[in-house]
Amino acid sequence: MQPAERIARQIAFLVECDRLKDIVRRTLNAHSGRPENDAEHSWALCLFVMTLAEHSNTPIDVLRVMKMLLIHDIVEIDAGDTFAYDTKGQVDQHEREAAAATRIFGLLPEDQAAEFRALWDEFEDRRTSDARFAHAIDRCQAMLLNCLGKGVTWSRHNVRLDQIRARNAPIGEGSVALWTHMSHLLDEAVQSGYVTA
Amino acid sequence: MQPAERIARQIAFLVECDRLKDIVRRTLNAHSGRPENDAEHSWALCLFVMTLAEHSNTPIDVLRVMKMLLIHDIVEIDAGDTFAYDTKGQVDQHEREAAAATRIFGLLPEDQAAEFRALWDEFEDRRTSDARFAHAIDRCQAMLLNCLGKGVTWSRHNVRLDQIRARNAPIGEGSVALWTHMSHLLDEAVQSGYVTA
Repeated sequence: MQPAERIARQIAFLVECDRLKDIVRRTLNAHSGRPENDAEHSWALCLFVMTLAEHSNTPIDVLRVMKMLLIHDIVEIDAGDTFAYDTKGQVDQHEREAAAATRIFGLLPEDQAAEFRALWDEFEDRRTSDARFAHAIDRCQAMLLNCLGKGVTWSRHNVRLDQIRARNAPIGEGSVALWTHMSHLLDEAVQSGYVTA
Repeated sequence: MQPAERIARQIAFLVECDRLKDIVRRTLNAHSGRPENDAEHSWALCLFVMTLAEHSNTPIDVLRVMKMLLIHDIVEIDAGDTFAYDTKGQVDQHEREAAAATRIFGLLPEDQAAEFRALWDEFEDRRTSDARFAHAIDRCQAMLLNCLGKGVTWSRHNVRLDQIRARNAPIGEGSVALWTHMSHLLDEAVQSGYVTA
C-alpha cells in the first residue's frame, strides 16, 4: 500500500470515529448536568489514567491502557450504549459489539486493524493487568460522576446499593486504593439519602 | 502526603477538568454539525496520534504526545477558547492561559503539578519533536473537520485561503506526509468553492 493510500484509509477511519461524539450515555457531566457522550467519556478516562496510574495494584503500561480506553467504546457507533445495569441489553451486547469492531477497525490498513482489534479484545477479556486497570478506571469515572450527581442516574433507573457495589467492585481488581476511596464516596451518598439500600 | 490525601487532590483536579466538556469551539463535528467541545477535541487528537504517529518526520514518544494533548486545552476552563484566526484575542492569550495553568495544575499534588505544567509549557514552546507533532495533529484535526464541513467555519468568520495556509503550514513541521494530504483536501475545498481566495 502506498503512503498516500495508507493515510487516506486512516483518515476515513478517523472521520467514522467522529460519530462517537453523538453516542450519549446515561451518566451526567459534573458541572452542566448534561448527559455525557462517549468521546468526552473516553477523554476523561485517559486523563484519569494519566493522573491515577500510580495507584494500580500491579505495574501497567500507561500507553497501552490509554490506547485501549481511546477505542474501547468505538463499537457503540454501531451497537449503541448499553447501560451498565441493563441485564437484557447485555445478553447479546458482546455479539453486537464484535460485529461493530470488525466493520469499524476494518476501515484501517490491515496491520493497524489487527493491532486495534487485539487491544479491544484484550480490554473485553479483562485478563491482563493493563485491561484490569482500564476497566477499573472506566467504572471509577462513571461512579464518581454518579456520586457527584447526587445519584440521579441510579435512582432514575431504579439501581440499588447492592447492584452499585457489585458493578463497581472490579475497581479493586485494578486498584485497591481507588476502590477504598470510591467506597467512602458511596457511603457518603448513602448517608445523604442519594442511594436506595 | 498520605495516599488518601493524594487521591483526594487528584480527584479534585479531575472533577475541575470535567468543565472542559463545556468549553465550545468554533469547529463543527463531522456528522452532526454541532460545535465541538474541548473534551471531544482532546479525545479526537489522541486517537489521531494513535493512528497517524508513523507519519511523524522524526521519532516521537507517543505517550508524551498524548499526555500533552490530553491537557493542552485545560487552561481554556479559565481563559476560554481563542479562535485560531482571532488576532486580537491572541495578544494576551498566553498570559491568560499561563495563569489558568498555575491555578488548575496547582490542584494536583506538587510533583504532578510540576510534571503536567512542564508538559504544557513544552507544548506551548513547540521546540521539541513531540511538541511539533502534537501541534501538527491539533491543526490537522481542526482543518479536516473544517474541510468536511464545507468551509462553513472559515466563511462564517471571513477567513481567507492565505490565512488558512499560513495557520496550517506548521502541520508540515510535524509531518510532511500529513501536510501533503491536507493540502490536497484544501485544494479540493477551493475547487468546490468552499474557501475564499
